Amino acid sequence: MRVWTVPQAAGIDSLVLQEQATPRPGPSQVLVRMRAASLNYRDLMVVGGRYARGAPLPDLVPLSDGAGEVAETGPGVTRVKPGDRVAGIFMQTWIGGDIEPEHAASSLGGAIHGVLAEYVVFSQDGLVHLPEHLSFEEGATLPCAGVTAWNALYGGRPLVVGQTVLVLGTGGVSIFALQLAHAAGARVIATSSSDGKLAQAKTLGATDGVNYRDHPEWHVQVLTLTGGRGVDHVVEIGGAGTLPQSMRAARNGGHISLIGVLAGFQAELNTAAIMGNQIRLIGITVGSREQQQEMIRAIDANGLKPVIDRSFPLENLADAFRYQESGAHFGKICVEID
Amino acid sequence: MRVWTVPQAAGIDSLVLQEQATPRPGPSQVLVRMRAASLNYRDLMVVGGRYARGAPLPDLVPLSDGAGEVAETGPGVTRVKPGDRVAGIFMQTWIGGDIEPEHAASSLGGAIHGVLAEYVVFSQDGLVHLPEHLSFEEGATLPCAGVTAWNALYGGRPLVVGQTVLVLGTGGVSIFALQLAHAAGARVIATSSSDGKLAQAKTLGATDGVNYRDHPEWHVQVLTLTGGRGVDHVVEIGGAGTLPQSMRAARNGGHISLIGVLAGFQAELNTAAIMGNQIRLIGITVGSREQQQEMIRAIDANGLKPVIDRSFPLENLADAFRYQESGAHFGKICVEID
Amino acid sequence: MRVWTVPQAAGIDSLVLQEQATPRPGPSQVLVRMRAASLNYRDLMVVGGRYARGAPLPDLVPLSDGAGEVAETGPGVTRVKPGDRVAGIFMQTWIGGDIEPEHAASSLGGAIHGVLAEYVVFSQDGLVHLPEHLSFEEGATLPCAGVTAWNALYGGRPLVVGQTVLVLGTGGVSIFALQLAHAAGARVIATSSSDGKLAQAKTLGATDGVNYRDHPEWHVQVLTLTGGRGVDHVVEIGGAGTLPQSMRAARNGGHISLIGVLAGFQAELNTAAIMGNQIRLIGITVGSREQQQEMIRAIDANGLKPVIDRSFPLENLADAFRYQESGAHFGKICVEID
Amino acid sequence: MRVWTVPQAAGIDSLVLQEQATPRPGPSQVLVRMRAASLNYRDLMVVGGRYARGAPLPDLVPLSDGAGEVAETGPGVTRVKPGDRVAGIFMQTWIGGDIEPEHAASSLGGAIHGVLAEYVVFSQDGLVHLPEHLSFEEGATLPCAGVTAWNALYGGRPLVVGQTVLVLGTGGVSIFALQLAHAAGARVIATSSSDGKLAQAKTLGATDGVNYRDHPEWHVQVLTLTGGRGVDHVVEIGGAGTLPQSMRAARNGGHISLIGVLAGFQAELNTAAIMGNQIRLIGITVGSREQQQEMIRAIDANGLKPVIDRSFPLENLADAFRYQESGAHFGKICVEID
Repeated sequence: MRVWTVPQAAGIDSLVLQEQATPRPGPSQVLVRMRAASLNYRDLMVVGGRYARGAPLPDLVPLSDGAGEVAETGPGVTRVKPGDRVAGIFMQTWIGGDIEPEHAASSLGGAIHGVLAEYVVFSQDGLVHLPEHLSFEEGATLPCAGVTAWNALYGGRPLVVGQTVLVLGTGGVSIFALQLAHAAGARVIATSSSDGKLAQAKTLGATDGVNYRDHPEWHVQVLTLTGGRGVDHVVEIGGAGTLPQSMRAARNGGHISLIGVLAGFQAELNTAAIMGNQIRLIGITVGSREQQQEMIRAIDANGLKPVIDRSFPLENLADAFRYQESGAHFGKICVEID
Repeated sequence: MRVWTVPQAAGIDSLVLQEQATPRPGPSQVLVRMRAASLNYRDLMVVGGRYARGAPLPDLVPLSDGAGEVAETGPGVTRVKPGDRVAGIFMQTWIGGDIEPEHAASSLGGAIHGVLAEYVVFSQDGLVHLPEHLSFEEGATLPCAGVTAWNALYGGRPLVVGQTVLVLGTGGVSIFALQLAHAAGARVIATSSSDGKLAQAKTLGATDGVNYRDHPEWHVQVLTLTGGRGVDHVVEIGGAGTLPQSMRAARNGGHISLIGVLAGFQAELNTAAIMGNQIRLIGITVGSREQQQEMIRAIDANGLKPVIDRSFPLENLADAFRYQESGAHFGKICVEID
Repeated sequence: MRVWTVPQAAGIDSLVLQEQATPRPGPSQVLVRMRAASLNYRDLMVVGGRYARGAPLPDLVPLSDGAGEVAETGPGVTRVKPGDRVAGIFMQTWIGGDIEPEHAASSLGGAIHGVLAEYVVFSQDGLVHLPEHLSFEEGATLPCAGVTAWNALYGGRPLVVGQTVLVLGTGGVSIFALQLAHAAGARVIATSSSDGKLAQAKTLGATDGVNYRDHPEWHVQVLTLTGGRGVDHVVEIGGAGTLPQSMRAARNGGHISLIGVLAGFQAELNTAAIMGNQIRLIGITVGSREQQQEMIRAIDANGLKPVIDRSFPLENLADAFRYQESGAHFGKICVEID
Repeated sequence: MRVWTVPQAAGIDSLVLQEQATPRPGPSQVLVRMRAASLNYRDLMVVGGRYARGAPLPDLVPLSDGAGEVAETGPGVTRVKPGDRVAGIFMQTWIGGDIEPEHAASSLGGAIHGVLAEYVVFSQDGLVHLPEHLSFEEGATLPCAGVTAWNALYGGRPLVVGQTVLVLGTGGVSIFALQLAHAAGARVIATSSSDGKLAQAKTLGATDGVNYRDHPEWHVQVLTLTGGRGVDHVVEIGGAGTLPQSMRAARNGGHISLIGVLAGFQAELNTAAIMGNQIRLIGITVGSREQQQEMIRAIDANGLKPVIDRSFPLENLADAFRYQESGAHFGKICVEID
């Protein structure tokens, strides 16, 4: 079978497409014929050697997010059967409940080999079924970006119908959060530097958009849109550069899910503002299988379709990564594996 | 001013429309010019002397649910101003948090005088603002039926987008629960003995309907509709007569909000079924001001309109109660106060 | 190795002590040298053919609760190492989060083979470490009775310091609940038909005891002891026969964990009482590995010791079961495996 | 009656002890004969003109925390009766549930007049009963420092028996948190620059103490004391200067309640650390009446006694504030009002 590997973590050009023997499933294991994968910002960091979670595996197989068909099941497998359409879960041992350090040691395409191969062996506990109305490519977008958005909305104080959610930018997590929050009967305010992307966000359910290039003090617009009250939830993807404004855009007692690092790592935080506004700031790292299943039920019940910007053939992985680097996309970038 | 009273609690014909002096607001009090009220099943019990919460006040003013305009504010009032459109809250002292026995001693139209008068004095803490898109009649349906539905869905384990909700029948609470759950991105299954009412329920967002006359073992249909999994939430309005089937229709770990007593008070419960299915059974009695405000935000954000079957002039209160007794209505019955 | 089996589920005398080949651990599996086991009421039901979860395995190995030492680890095992002192978890696949039907299919000594053998192979995910201050026998009491008590106190609305807990009787779950609630700074009221057992309960931390033989209307005593308020939590072990009084002993908004069936399966429940008192009634079936770990931290931090009434040698299993049937015990009954 | 006022907010020496007419209670109001008050750091900020919540009332009566006896009740008062021993609540309108901006406008000794007078009129809703075993001085310490500690432990993810709590320093909130967490069966680690204060903390239930003068990198000690796991809860009183280390001392998924500003307002936060460690950072501002009542039940059930360092006669308020400024105290500083 063909498989991509990261022999050196020296950037996109150092990726290697290899031929390897197709693995076989052991007890409680499942062999999946992968059909699609999707890219996350973290994958770019892994490939570039900037993902600091200890030394990577030799010849690491990259990418955490993939979907395919069950090809063969090992002894004792009861959760899936050959032919089932499945996706992996980001941390293979985080089944449900609170996160534990041991879970992080099982993250695909980082701590352990990932999914960018024609065949991958999973523990049966590390898989979920795909909703029927999703293609393999759509299903491949769920494990990291989708579950992160779900955890942002439901992992702390859960989103309730009628609340207002602020999503920053139009990256993968933000668009999932927008779609899920809209389906959940929330008002959604999106920010972007592009009026075109804000218009796209509105077609997906955003109630309002704020162009932060036109309004550098964008939290003022958000407060105005909420009648001065502020938003209930912020899906904070920017990190250090945006957090101070996010805290001012949140209501008294508001909830901020901190996910991203795009705008830097070091934030100058006013702790008096956190107290005075009774902010709840929660750090998010993807989520559990239970959360992935809950999200899939939400996607299923509301007929949601993940937004895919563009797909690339398996051979053209480097092009996919370069397109991701360009930042021109709206929604997810996928890789087809046939 | 004109005011209805219950001098004897001897049934609908014993109600008396009186002339009384218009009251004035004291410190922290608000005089409201009532514009509409709505009926709940509990009001029929009060009027009929079947509402066993101790001896009623002499000449009790009936009805818990009403809306109107602020006519005058007493000293120290900061939460509303003259001209504001407001509704009362069911228990005047249940502001937020958990229920306490002292709250029940402040329920309108039962423990204390109700709202069926041209002018009513409230504590400023016992009022909430109406959403702009609702009429006074629509606003008058919220305090009891609307808040009960909200508490049923959010007061125990909160409803999450993508879950499935079963609502029994098409009474006031059930229809609110249907509308709120639909707005929250849930699947909603409704039951009724009338195909016509089920059709109406579907226009309000019910995904499926089950006619329990055609299917006396209706829990089987519910299980089938959920692929054998069972529903996440039951809004259990029937009481003893329906609870055993509700428990079988619920999923492993499912949540049942027990609200109503229409089908009797004494249930023969199989405790092994509660354990084996890990049921969460929660008794509900309306809710707090905080819950009413959260519900109003949900109504506002989703443009929901309470379903009103019919309105009666103030003079025709007896006709309104008789219509309620007939059970022919779908949605709320209102009283206009001009 | 020696192993007990249940060839026929025809009662205590039908149990057979066999010699079988010692198993070996496969990938992600762990071989444990069992050192102790403990009995639960459910085991008596399994042995007597009264545990209705479908046809049992042929020659089922009984008992869910056991502790021992890791003898050997299979490939890929990271969670334990040889020599570690461990106990199993009741449902081998319920790691954390909400219960799912698939978890019940992995319960030891019921759905799958249990622990009453000299060597048992577990999935590495189905084990937890023992606290250092516990013997193997003490550790063997945790998986079913201990975790059930924990789930009763923390699986619904979590117990908070200063609340009052009512535990019914002095069986295994009730005593664990008493000890844990006392360590958590709660007031604990215990009931029993024996003044001697009530005295023992007080030495373990019960604030008060009520003899239900002397006070058949024991809920009156409980209300008096709480100044009329009622208790916050009931650990309801009796089932149908005690539930009506438990509901009257609970406070407005009180929480009842329904665990046991000792006093019968069919309860005549007054649904108006559930509503009027806003009761939260939760069915409990043991708990997850995450809950077991949380409980172990509580045991560890507070130096709690499980209460063991008596231990029997492996050969004398029938005597152990007969002693359990007698009801004379206070605390757990154990089996030594050397 | 005698009453202290803050005519100018120009520091301790600008406080004035006046004679004013004793007020009378109106409808739903209660006149309390104050017997004791206690100081909080915020009072020093108010007196010094550093409490930036808009222009203070003219001749503001300072101090939020006081206790006394009900002297007289106005019409309609049902919650207390003459002779009852009571304390005020910090925000007079925050009864229960989530915080709302309107609550902050009712905080005693800041937004509205405080308690440092021989007689104070409260709304009946703004009072709670004192536990019998507490003196007026002890009761006077609860409204701000006690409730803040409670909210820190229970207002976000609630503390559970067996968890580990880190309290920074030995100020009023930290000592309450220590006592409550100890009563709740938690392990408590305290920090201080004084070995003497650490020894005192241990007599109150602290399991371990870390001298941050000896160990400037004190989070290393905390990690060692928790076997590398980190603590479940941090009661973060220091603010900007200590938060970075608190985040490193917290476990994966740990909870930090941000309360104080003693070590500065501007924190340089590493947002990657918040995400990578899944930190939950919650800003706390005192709490609701419901929380105060829950805390009082915890104090009552466990016989806790607030720690009072020293009391001053009413006349010597300036001395009390100067003693507070010195930082030499361990526990609360009180004012006697006779």
